[in-house]
Amino acid sequence: MVFILKPGVSQEKIDCFIRSWEAKGFSTILSVGTEHTAVCLLGNTAAVDLEHVVQTSGIVEYGRRVTEQYKAVNRTVHTDDTLIPVGNAVIGEGSFTVIAGPCSVESEEQIIKVAESVKASGAKLLRGGAFKPRTSPYSFQGIGADGLNLLLEAKKATGLPIVSEIMNQTQIPLFEDIDVIQIGARNMQNFDLLKAVGQLKKPVLLKRGLANSIEELLMSAEYIMSEGNDQIILCERGIRTFETMTRNTLDLSAVVLLKQKSHLPVIVDPSHATGIRSLVAPLSKAVLAVGADGLLVEVHNDPAHALCDGGQSLDPGQFAGLMETLKTRATVEKKLI
Amino acid sequence: MVFILKPGVSQEKIDCFIRSWEAKGFSTILSVGTEHTAVCLLGNTAAVDLEHVVQTSGIVEYGRRVTEQYKAVNRTVHTDDTLIPVGNAVIGEGSFTVIAGPCSVESEEQIIKVAESVKASGAKLLRGGAFKPRTSPYSFQGIGADGLNLLLEAKKATGLPIVSEIMNQTQIPLFEDIDVIQIGARNMQNFDLLKAVGQLKKPVLLKRGLANSIEELLMSAEYIMSEGNDQIILCERGIRTFETMTRNTLDLSAVVLLKQKSHLPVIVDPSHATGIRSLVAPLSKAVLAVGADGLLVEVHNDPAHALCDGGQSLDPGQFAGLMETLKTRATVEKKLI
Amino acid sequence: MVFILKPGVSQEKIDCFIRSWEAKGFSTILSVGTEHTAVCLLGNTAAVDLEHVVQTSGIVEYGRRVTEQYKAVNRTVHTDDTLIPVGNAVIGEGSFTVIAGPCSVESEEQIIKVAESVKASGAKLLRGGAFKPRTSPYSFQGIGADGLNLLLEAKKATGLPIVSEIMNQTQIPLFEDIDVIQIGARNMQNFDLLKAVGQLKKPVLLKRGLANSIEELLMSAEYIMSEGNDQIILCERGIRTFETMTRNTLDLSAVVLLKQKSHLPVIVDPSHATGIRSLVAPLSKAVLAVGADGLLVEVHNDPAHALCDGGQSLDPGQFAGLMETLKTRATVEKKLI
Amino acid sequence: MVFILKPGVSQEKIDCFIRSWEAKGFSTILSVGTEHTAVCLLGNTAAVDLEHVVQTSGIVEYGRRVTEQYKAVNRTVHTDDTLIPVGNAVIGEGSFTVIAGPCSVESEEQIIKVAESVKASGAKLLRGGAFKPRTSPYSFQGIGADGLNLLLEAKKATGLPIVSEIMNQTQIPLFEDIDVIQIGARNMQNFDLLKAVGQLKKPVLLKRGLANSIEELLMSAEYIMSEGNDQIILCERGIRTFETMTRNTLDLSAVVLLKQKSHLPVIVDPSHATGIRSLVAPLSKAVLAVGADGLLVEVHNDPAHALCDGGQSLDPGQFAGLMETLKTRATVEKKLI
Repeated sequence: MVFILKPGVSQEKIDCFIRSWEAKGFSTILSVGTEHTAVCLLGNTAAVDLEHVVQTSGIVEYGRRVTEQYKAVNRTVHTDDTLIPVGNAVIGEGSFTVIAGPCSVESEEQIIKVAESVKASGAKLLRGGAFKPRTSPYSFQGIGADGLNLLLEAKKATGLPIVSEIMNQTQIPLFEDIDVIQIGARNMQNFDLLKAVGQLKKPVLLKRGLANSIEELLMSAEYIMSEGNDQIILCERGIRTFETMTRNTLDLSAVVLLKQKSHLPVIVDPSHATGIRSLVAPLSKAVLAVGADGLLVEVHNDPAHALCDGGQSLDPGQFAGLMETLKTRATVEKKLI
Repeated sequence: MVFILKPGVSQEKIDCFIRSWEAKGFSTILSVGTEHTAVCLLGNTAAVDLEHVVQTSGIVEYGRRVTEQYKAVNRTVHTDDTLIPVGNAVIGEGSFTVIAGPCSVESEEQIIKVAESVKASGAKLLRGGAFKPRTSPYSFQGIGADGLNLLLEAKKATGLPIVSEIMNQTQIPLFEDIDVIQIGARNMQNFDLLKAVGQLKKPVLLKRGLANSIEELLMSAEYIMSEGNDQIILCERGIRTFETMTRNTLDLSAVVLLKQKSHLPVIVDPSHATGIRSLVAPLSKAVLAVGADGLLVEVHNDPAHALCDGGQSLDPGQFAGLMETLKTRATVEKKLI
Repeated sequence: MVFILKPGVSQEKIDCFIRSWEAKGFSTILSVGTEHTAVCLLGNTAAVDLEHVVQTSGIVEYGRRVTEQYKAVNRTVHTDDTLIPVGNAVIGEGSFTVIAGPCSVESEEQIIKVAESVKASGAKLLRGGAFKPRTSPYSFQGIGADGLNLLLEAKKATGLPIVSEIMNQTQIPLFEDIDVIQIGARNMQNFDLLKAVGQLKKPVLLKRGLANSIEELLMSAEYIMSEGNDQIILCERGIRTFETMTRNTLDLSAVVLLKQKSHLPVIVDPSHATGIRSLVAPLSKAVLAVGADGLLVEVHNDPAHALCDGGQSLDPGQFAGLMETLKTRATVEKKLI
Repeated sequence: MVFILKPGVSQEKIDCFIRSWEAKGFSTILSVGTEHTAVCLLGNTAAVDLEHVVQTSGIVEYGRRVTEQYKAVNRTVHTDDTLIPVGNAVIGEGSFTVIAGPCSVESEEQIIKVAESVKASGAKLLRGGAFKPRTSPYSFQGIGADGLNLLLEAKKATGLPIVSEIMNQTQIPLFEDIDVIQIGARNMQNFDLLKAVGQLKKPVLLKRGLANSIEELLMSAEYIMSEGNDQIILCERGIRTFETMTRNTLDLSAVVLLKQKSHLPVIVDPSHATGIRSLVAPLSKAVLAVGADGLLVEVHNDPAHALCDGGQSLDPGQFAGLMETLKTRATVEKKLI
């Protein structure tokens, strides 16, 4: 149940209103937007007489039952778009933010080279994997903590903020200087990890699981936000279907639905979704056109010799070409890139 | 196995070459393109010595084994884009052809009203269902042959060519004046129907089945083309996955792959794929951006009272708005709309 | 809405009751069971006052709204198991009926050999494909009408009734002497074919489509039964999922649910579901244990040289072994085999 | 690559053989079976001349390349069934081990009551969740570490060994006295957790992920076994498909394939797979018939008031009935229960 407050209500009265509900055993979410302030009740609200509250509280303009299970991330509770400022970018603010970099950090030379080239082409953040979740224990597992240090070197060299994937909550201290913590598809329902990053004050890039519904992605975001962290970037990256010609099936309808149902920004990763280099550029154009807030794209200085996922990586020249294509289209979409 | 012929070889020599293979029990496909002419062998070519043929035939420039099961529809056999002229449109010729109309034909007034409005907004073909495949025997099954007549009335009134769905091969005579025969998702592997429309000289709009892979769609097109009809428009319309928030999951990667692997034009139906009106416009923009040759979109003069699928239909005003949006983007994509 | 009639009501009164509803525009289904007779109304029953009918009709004991879309095949409408007598078997009558034979009829010698061996092992019906739905137009398509004649020869030789697959409704005359018409997975929603076989007085074996839900299978059976033919055998044969190690994923939960929700018998085809010979025997045991009414299993006299699906076929010796295994277990399940 | 050693080779020679490979940069797995001892090489073995090794090593009888990615869990490397002794049961030794208990531990009274009743009916292990992975942060999350203590009380009272689910590797110390650590479907690819339990000397029950293939399940077991722990019980519990009538689709083909491809025992959880109480008994019979090593089934003393998943739980009476049914069938299958 969400209560939209009258304009100009004092903070004191809001606090008092919230305390009265918490005294009755409800949790609450306070949502301050540009147009109005709202208080959302969590818990079993079946017995709450909505009309009675509106008439007697003195500060409530109107109320609504929130039928969806997700409350804090729900656009009916918080109508403003959530903005995620990182470096020079503000993800979600009508821009189209491109995050680029290699699947895995391999060496200082490699990551700095890639960072410089993607920055030159217009990427706003650098991605790179230090810890890699791999199906086989015998596959390359990433270079670990050293990789995070190399990413920070690349940040020093280029100024690009860093996105890197965490594997479990014990690694949080290692990510202190990383700008955006990525939670990968396989960890989307690692609830203890979600709770742990929910207590940070740091943006989280949350990827949709291979077998997870749109609603489950929102529920996982709710885990993070209900702990206090609203700096969440949702990421569609393909779901598992019977089709075998692509690694996964990219679900662009999800982008539209996520933005309708939630106030969180949504980006798309066509590289992992398809696993096929020649699909990345046309799908990236579709990602921009469908209304996403950005793109996560794999770029490697030498894809043929990449330690991981070379077959889906663009080389710097291909990425530069893609960015030119996107910039022309972004103008039409009235989006900054 | 495909043989690319030397330039300027006489028809007589080609015929002789083809007869020599057919005498050995192979079937052949002759493909005449702008850049070269090719002859494709069908059958067990394992024992054919490709190099020997190149050296001794006198007319073959080079040869290649075609490892894919689809031969006639394969872009390596026929490199030119196949063009489908219908009315004022040429589908596949670098344009973006919009086909619009109601799920079902309901009355003369309705279909003419819709036809006029979609034509005014820029649609090049009119779609409408006369025979409707419905999960339940108790649901509205379409108005049948009368619906085809009403569509022809609408064609008379507006000049728009007609697309309508056939249910089985005994109905072919009814479709004599219909411009494009649609084979629906449930009939994509109705092989007798595919063979029957393969013997017509009329464009066929072939929809991907709900559980069919990209390769199976190409194999179904191969059924049609191997009977002699190459006027085939492929249509992606969503596949069945675990996600329940949309009716099906629209697979835009398929568009790119189909155009890479085949010379046939590819269009997309976001209305049936999602079943949700508010997704149609953003996905239509993505369809254009990803490189499709056109769009199939449901438009009804009064969606709230449609006999079928009203929840996914645009009204004429919404469709006009969508077309304006698409026209701006088509310019950037250098596509006529 | 279904009305359970009082015991001993005269046929005249029932006819009168039915006519009164049909006069109001409803269709009806009359269901005569061992325990009671029921009349089911089809159409928009929202405005019908159930209690009023019970009190005023004089012949209704009680009524119930049928919320499911399937009515005629619904167990709440017709509580008795439907029995399908074919040859010496009565499918659905507490027995476990095994139907066996090759994927394709290849020659008289082959089909008679297989028929004799499967009969000796205890199969009650012979299956064999004359018309084969194949993904590729270049694959073996079956030997056609000749195949049906050879099946009838095998019937003459062994007495086994015949099951064979139809491809479209124009073939119905060819199947006049075939005992059971099979509708394959790809035709499960070929609604014109369903309506056509619904007008026959002959058992229909209806296979679940690759991407069709349990409810859709029941709706397709409803198409047949609403035309007057209740001799329908449902067949689970695997659905399409992301798993690639088996051809499809066999869904044995479906067997239990179908038998709970419908009065029709249910059999299972583990050969097509998995495509792997070594899985057929263990899954057949599971099929018996889970409560199915029978089994459809591929047996070929020489699987290594079968023209179709040899990799999943048992040879006669393996089939004999399987039947021994099943007979022991059938005793425990108190089922005749 | 796996080398089968000659019978009676001394441990010294084996150690020397292994060291020689490790000196060349390979990892090895030593597998001691009843029939033979084998050494499996891990790493890039493309350049190893298999025949040369057989002829020159003096201790190798023959060798084989292992084409599958899974090595340690591969039946071609280790042909004997792996046995898992827990309490009075030896899982995998031709018995059918039933593990039963509530979804969640709720109170001492509840868990002891359930433990006593399932023991009386023949269950060999007690399951119960202390930490619950839930889609919503607002759902009951389990009673935590207290739950583990209550399970140990129930063990004291009944002697039944305990199975309970771990959520992340920091919880390992809490599970010191728990007999079998369960890794749930959502954690099947939590690779750090897999590595951590791989270093324990304690049985691990590894559930298949909702969207994970049979091969991926084997690769996750490989993570555990390559760390040194071979006490792994695989568990099929349904996969996510388009079918919505059951929560997931139980894949019994997987049981047969897992037992063919691996030496690890395989059990099945029909309660979570279907989410429907009335399906549990028939599917349990199928699980036994298909050749699984056991069953994981939810039993609650008062399903209607369970805090979690009551709709799929059997009550003690229903469970007793199921066990009777299974015992009769187990005799036919020549399995102890």
